[in-house]
Amino acid sequence: MDLVVGIDIGGTKTKIGLVDGNGKCLDQTFFRTREYPKLDDYLEKVKSECDELIASLEFTPNILGCGIGAPNASSKRGTIENAANLAWKGTVPILGEFKKKWDMPMRIMNDASAAALGELLFGRGKKMTDFIAITLGTGFGAGIVANGQLIDGYDGFAGELGHVDMTIGDGRLTGLGVEGGLEAYVSATGLKRTILYMQSHYMDDSRFRGIAYNDLHGEEITQAAEEGDAIAIKAFDYTAKIMAQALANFTAFTQPEAFILMGGLVNSGKWILEPLEKYLDQFLLQVYRGKVKILESGMEGKTAAICGASALIWENHR
Amino acid sequence: MDLVVGIDIGGTKTKIGLVDGNGKCLDQTFFRTREYPKLDDYLEKVKSECDELIASLEFTPNILGCGIGAPNASSKRGTIENAANLAWKGTVPILGEFKKKWDMPMRIMNDASAAALGELLFGRGKKMTDFIAITLGTGFGAGIVANGQLIDGYDGFAGELGHVDMTIGDGRLTGLGVEGGLEAYVSATGLKRTILYMQSHYMDDSRFRGIAYNDLHGEEITQAAEEGDAIAIKAFDYTAKIMAQALANFTAFTQPEAFILMGGLVNSGKWILEPLEKYLDQFLLQVYRGKVKILESGMEGKTAAICGASALIWENHR
Repeated sequence: MDLVVGIDIGGTKTKIGLVDGNGKCLDQTFFRTREYPKLDDYLEKVKSECDELIASLEFTPNILGCGIGAPNASSKRGTIENAANLAWKGTVPILGEFKKKWDMPMRIMNDASAAALGELLFGRGKKMTDFIAITLGTGFGAGIVANGQLIDGYDGFAGELGHVDMTIGDGRLTGLGVEGGLEAYVSATGLKRTILYMQSHYMDDSRFRGIAYNDLHGEEITQAAEEGDAIAIKAFDYTAKIMAQALANFTAFTQPEAFILMGGLVNSGKWILEPLEKYLDQFLLQVYRGKVKILESGMEGKTAAICGASALIWENHR
Repeated sequence: MDLVVGIDIGGTKTKIGLVDGNGKCLDQTFFRTREYPKLDDYLEKVKSECDELIASLEFTPNILGCGIGAPNASSKRGTIENAANLAWKGTVPILGEFKKKWDMPMRIMNDASAAALGELLFGRGKKMTDFIAITLGTGFGAGIVANGQLIDGYDGFAGELGHVDMTIGDGRLTGLGVEGGLEAYVSATGLKRTILYMQSHYMDDSRFRGIAYNDLHGEEITQAAEEGDAIAIKAFDYTAKIMAQALANFTAFTQPEAFILMGGLVNSGKWILEPLEKYLDQFLLQVYRGKVKILESGMEGKTAAICGASALIWENHR
């Protein structure tokens, strides 16, 4: 049976899984990325986890290759460059180093681009030629599919839309220091920042008046909205409005048929999606109105990143 | 000899030319678009002008097809839709109607996308896989090439970047009523509006204090800058700054290797290009810095639009 190794390198966890040609993850494991600050140790750990996963199968698979999703990855150079949330600094030639340990077909890509490729091969994007996959986690990531292909960019850094300048008022700073950058507003972190902002801006009573920023969790904001907390509801509306403006701008770029959303913020359901639909309809140019869908990811949440990474290899076996 | 008919439909002029496989326009003509408000009369006129051009050649060419560039054109549907500057209202099935008069391979495309295809086949984009062509005329048009292909969009309306919201202060309105839309600032018209704004904002003396908006021409603004007119210089700086912010945002989208500029505003030369380079370097995310070129079009100005339109057909003969 043909299988692909999918690896998702995150700031917190590294997830590894074995994925079949239908995007099904047969088995998976993970370890904490930060426990292996030296690249060589890290890659040894990845390799041994892969070996173990493969050995634990009840059959001997034919491994076609290894796909990797990672923040700040250049698909064209096989590197990770200046990743804010990883211990390895500067430009890391991770693909070249990993190939020294395990000689097989390998590809690496920005994690959001890998997610988009996953949707194209296995998820909601199967029958589409033009869509944008958006990951709304700690940050805001995007993978762009146009003309049925993933857009790479000149040296593999297309889709860094979290740092598009939205110039709202005096502009929050993103982690990269971009003033007014989108992900400072539209992400799980952005929503938390907006909970503070709304408390500063309005006098409404709220459960959040008793909770410090560091103790604030996304699920709690959804729950508060359910209970009618005015600050929570205003925060969702504000987030959705800025997100809608950004999606309207993105639509003018590649005119996607759909935005496919995934990540923590999407779990807030109608609180984010309903105002998002309303504002998007308002902000879209007439020529686009009624043509752009907002969809939730068709991939299973827990293994979505692994399956997306595996799509880098599966793409070449169709 | 193989030739392609290239047609550029503009609000003022319709330009028609015969283009060879090197993008050279052998002969051309034009007429005033508004003199033929009925579509049928217009297409008859186009056809007879084409016949005349072909008959006047010293040889009998093999016409491969006809490529058309037009505002608000949908490449996928062969239509022009809700074009603000054309007499035909609503959705015009122009390709279908023209084929009834002249049965040959035909394609239509947004004029800026056609220009991008022209640069890809014949101009500065020849050796590039990722670039964005920008036309800075009455409006702001863009054609996006990524992965070596022109990006069409879901139903052929990709690249409407003139209406991307830049939300500057209280936002100028574009012709489509988009508040803060890019082309309200960055276009020949936008520059004229900025000359007014700068007079309202600063007290500097200027030759423009004696010139009404309707009497204002782009060349004069360049000349005034040459002579040290403070309002003209401030207007160029302001235009370049907003344009740089937009290009920095666009870079985060498809990461082009270059922006290829054409149209009236580019004739202002260093007055727009020098501050543009300066601000772009300032606004680009670090990962893109030093990798994005600003180029002027490689096509001959007068026939660029015709050659771009012809590229729609030549693209299929390579």
